[in-house]
Order: sequence, then structure tokens, then C-alpha cells
Amino acid sequence: MAAKKIRVILFGLGPIGAACARVLALRPEAYEFVGAIDLDPRKVGQDIGAVIGLPEKYGVKVSAQAGRVLAKDADLTLHATGSYLTQVKPQLMQIIAAGKNIVSTCEELSNPWVQNARVADELHKLAKRHRVTVVGTGINPGYAMDTLPVALTAVCQKVERVRVKRVVDASKRRRQLQQKIGAGMTVEAFHQAAANKEIRHVGLAESVGLVARGLGWQLDEIMETIEPVVATQRVVTEHVIVEPNFVAGVRQFGRGLYAGQDKVILELEMAVDAPEAYDEAWIEGTPNVHSLVKGIHGDLSTAAVVGNAARRVVEAKPGLLTMMDLALVSAR
Amino acid sequence: MAAKKIRVILFGLGPIGAACARVLALRPEAYEFVGAIDLDPRKVGQDIGAVIGLPEKYGVKVSAQAGRVLAKDADLTLHATGSYLTQVKPQLMQIIAAGKNIVSTCEELSNPWVQNARVADELHKLAKRHRVTVVGTGINPGYAMDTLPVALTAVCQKVERVRVKRVVDASKRRRQLQQKIGAGMTVEAFHQAAANKEIRHVGLAESVGLVARGLGWQLDEIMETIEPVVATQRVVTEHVIVEPNFVAGVRQFGRGLYAGQDKVILELEMAVDAPEAYDEAWIEGTPNVHSLVKGIHGDLSTAAVVGNAARRVVEAKPGLLTMMDLALVSAR
Repeated sequence: MAAKKIRVILFGLGPIGAACARVLALRPEAYEFVGAIDLDPRKVGQDIGAVIGLPEKYGVKVSAQAGRVLAKDADLTLHATGSYLTQVKPQLMQIIAAGKNIVSTCEELSNPWVQNARVADELHKLAKRHRVTVVGTGINPGYAMDTLPVALTAVCQKVERVRVKRVVDASKRRRQLQQKIGAGMTVEAFHQAAANKEIRHVGLAESVGLVARGLGWQLDEIMETIEPVVATQRVVTEHVIVEPNFVAGVRQFGRGLYAGQDKVILELEMAVDAPEAYDEAWIEGTPNVHSLVKGIHGDLSTAAVVGNAARRVVEAKPGLLTMMDLALVSAR
Repeated sequence: MAAKKIRVILFGLGPIGAACARVLALRPEAYEFVGAIDLDPRKVGQDIGAVIGLPEKYGVKVSAQAGRVLAKDADLTLHATGSYLTQVKPQLMQIIAAGKNIVSTCEELSNPWVQNARVADELHKLAKRHRVTVVGTGINPGYAMDTLPVALTAVCQKVERVRVKRVVDASKRRRQLQQKIGAGMTVEAFHQAAANKEIRHVGLAESVGLVARGLGWQLDEIMETIEPVVATQRVVTEHVIVEPNFVAGVRQFGRGLYAGQDKVILELEMAVDAPEAYDEAWIEGTPNVHSLVKGIHGDLSTAAVVGNAARRVVEAKPGLLTMMDLALVSAR
């Protein structure tokens, strides 16, 4: 099958957008870049290759004129501009109206019915009207704490409860991530910042909801809690020094309840002193299944999931979909 | 969404067909039985419930008249009559011609291009002509050594090699399975039986090919080898006694080669003295990923995968497809 290449517009070329674009660039037989949008004046006018950190020249320059770029013939927009649905909604509507499928890194878009069902329904209708598919994904939300445990339930006749624990070693991650988890703060400052939602992983509630969607469950309620991981010894990273009793990171719980019972329990720990990173899941059902996965890498794998999902988004039926709706996503 | 129930015809009510039917019976909101076909005179004329081992009466009797049953209005045939493609081909053609989608336990149907591309192409064309979807699946082939490792590659930007090891504790399995793996034989008798293909797990080559399909790889060659697992101590099961130095089971390797390199290496051990059952995978790529899954149960999980795949088969586009083409299969 000499399939036609998928023509891609890049929308947002920060570190994550650029990393996702590099994954598509690894598959030149499947994808070609036809446009790129970013507001950063240091990027506008430059060739895509230079901006995403590759030696190749693509002959396509970054533009700040979204409307003009979206008017080009293209099959897919790789969208990576923000975590919050209300923040990216105008961009999504513009892309949909231009008739382009969307794969997005927006965390809340991974399951937008959780935080804002009205906007989700609106985007879903618009996407169906313009016959395009819209999916938000990434490693988390999008895979490690939702798609992977749901995929494991394929071997179960019944499932009573899904528990997941993800431990992320943030010590070698980007400065932005270490700040986002409160590394180096006092415990008091952490609690203040967490109350203001300045510190937290965005997407845990979305993952709880994805697990429920994947299993056809109606939850009564999704609850989230957050607490600091406190350093017991001095931790030094490239970006921060954490003294003992200061904050090394964050531990969050997401719970999905039905009839007073915990049906989904997700625990996420992201800290600069995490001894070892892993993803563990317990499927309580018939049979019980336990999985332990090592090696999922925050930055490499977020870009991988987005890049690998791209072709499945283009193939899928129109609408605002989730990872629960796509055909098997794999490294290709 | 009050979706219409999927109307199911059962074709083959041996132990595996009955187990798969019981999984569908666990989801009465999604499936209803409208017909059943089996040649066994002890089953013909009986209600489905009694034959599949459930207390419920379904008001549908087992018939030996396949043509008559297949003339009924139905969306899906759950097919479970044999492991080999050539053996079940006439049944598949009859079901397809009757316009019914098929989910089948036939091992070779999980990836029929491996053993018999001509028959696969023929079935594919016929399925498209009649606008039905045909998929063969189960725990292995169909999930443990192919779909699961391929699903894990979603987190990888590139994959160089996939290695999988599956260890099955056969000590509590059906007599038929213990015989199939040669438990209790002399080593000489094992080699003779293996040479006659009387002893082997059917589907390892199919799984190698599925991994390659899932990653978009063209393999030059798929190789299979088989050797006995020799008991080091006396093993007593419900069905067999194995003395030391007699055969406790089978170890098979399936390898997928490209340009002289092993790209896919699958190792399957099924023995009555397996110390612990597990499924382990190593994805060599960017990043490297390792997974260890415990609890996948041969009989329960084969029925689960088939039953869980059923709705995805009905939703999928027409043709002879594989698990690599279906939307995410989960316990619902």
C-alpha cells in the first residue's frame, strides 16, 4: 500500500510541540509538514527544521498568521499550545472550521467532558459538522494511567476496580516541570500554591474519566487530592536544590466513585527524589491482573504517544474522540 | 446512548465456544443470542443456556442446520470450531455469504496471511463484498504475545526489536491442553509428535506476524522452533503424572527476521511444572520499555478477549482484519 502522506500543520512550537514534530519527522514515508504556526517572533520566518531542532530544511517557514496557514491543504494539525480547554478552545474552533483533523497535547482535551461538558459537546458537534476528528493525548493523560490499564482489561471477563500507581523521576526533567511540581518550595508555600492550582499535574481527573469511559462505567463523582512529597535528604538537580524537609515534588490521587465505592484509584507521584520510575496497575476482576512497566519516559514518551496517535486520528470517524475510541496506537 | 443490542449467532459450542458465549452472557445490555449451531447430537435441540452451562433459559435452541440458523437476522457470529484456517474456511465463507460479522477463536485466522495468504486474500475480498468484518482472536494468538507488546510501543518514538516471553502454568488446565503440550510423554515420543505437528501451540508465527503488522514492518522470514520442557521432579496433575526426565511441556520460539536481524523474538513455555505464570516483554527502542504482567489466565482470558473484541468487530470497517486494526479492546 503506497498510502498518501499525511499533510501536517504544526500549531505551537514550544518544547513539547517541537518534540512531537520530531516524532513525525522520524516517519517521512508517512507524514509531510505543510505549515507551521507560532507567535514567538524568534521563530516566525524560520524554517521548521531549525525551530524543531533538526538539521534538515523543510522549505516551510513558521508563521504567526494562523488563518493563512490553516487555509492550506492539510490533513492534520498537531496542536501544542496549552493545558487548559478554555485557553485553547478558540484555536481548536479555528482549526476545526478550517476542516483539519487535530491531535493535541492539551491535557484537558484528553477527556473534556470531565471539566467542561458544555465545551466538549460544542467542539464535538462542530467537529462532526466539519467532518474532522479531534483527540487530545500524551503520556499522561492519554496513556500511562488510562489507555494502558484499560488495554490490560481486555483479558478480563469482569472488572470491579482499577488501581494505578505512576511514579515519575523528575530529577532529570525540564526546569518547567520541576517548578510545576513545587520542587524546592517550603511545605507552606506548596500548600498555598496547590490551593491556587499553581502546582499540580493537569489531567488526573481526565484519566479517571477515561478509565471509566473505556469500561463503560458511569461514575457518580471524580475526586482529586494533592499533597507534597517532602525530601528526607538533600537533592541537587540541574535546576534546583532541595534541602531536607523542603518539597521534592507532588503526590496526587484521583478517585472515581460509584455507589459509594472507589471504582478507579489513580496515584501519581512526581518528585526529584523518586527512587525509581515505574507504572503499576492492578485490575481487580476476573481474573485479577497486575502489571509493572518500566522505561516510560516523560518527555520522549509524550511526544511518542502524540506522534503515534496521529495516523489513527486521521483514520477515525469525525467528532471529538478520546484514546478509548482510536484503533490500536503503536510506534509507527 | 441506548444502543441496539448486538444479535449473536453461536457457531461451535465446545468448551471454548461455550466459555466465550458466557462472556457475552455477562453483558445482557449489549448482546442477545438469536441462534446457535453445533453438530453434537447431545447439544442439538437443547436451549443455549443448558449447553453453555448457565442456569438461564434463552429460548433459543441449538441446531445442526447451519444454513437455516445463518438465515436469521443477526449482527455477529461467534465462531469457535477449530484452530486451522483450511479446516474452518468453508464455515467462514458460509457465514460471510450470509452477511454476518465474525469473531472467531481460530488461531490461524488471527493473522492468516502468515500461513496462507491466498485464502486470506480470498476471505478478505469476500468479506468486503458482503460488507462484514472477520477477526480471529484469543489470548494467544491475539493478545498476550502480540497486541499487548504492540500496545506498549505507543510510548516509543522508535522500536528496533520486540522480545516477549510467556510462561503458562498448564498444571490446572484442561486435559486437552495438557495432551497438546506433550505432558507425560518420553522425550523421544515428544520429538516424533512434534515433527508430526501433533504437539505445538498454534499461533506463534501468527503472533510474530501481528507484531510486525502492528509496527509496519516487512519481515523477510518467520521461523519457529520447538523443544520439550523436561521435568526435573515428579509432577502430578488431575489429568497426568509426569516422572522426572519425562516431558512436562513445550517451549517454542517464534522469530521474525529482517535483513538477517531478529526483529521479533517470541518465547512461549507451556508446562505442567511452570513455577509461575507471567507475560514479559522487552521493547528495544527509544525509550526501552520493559513490562511484566501477572494474572493473565489461559481459559478465562481467551474467552474474555474474544467476548471483549466482539463489539469492536461489529463497529469496524468491512474486511478480514486483525487485532492490529480494531479500536481499543477492553472489558465491556
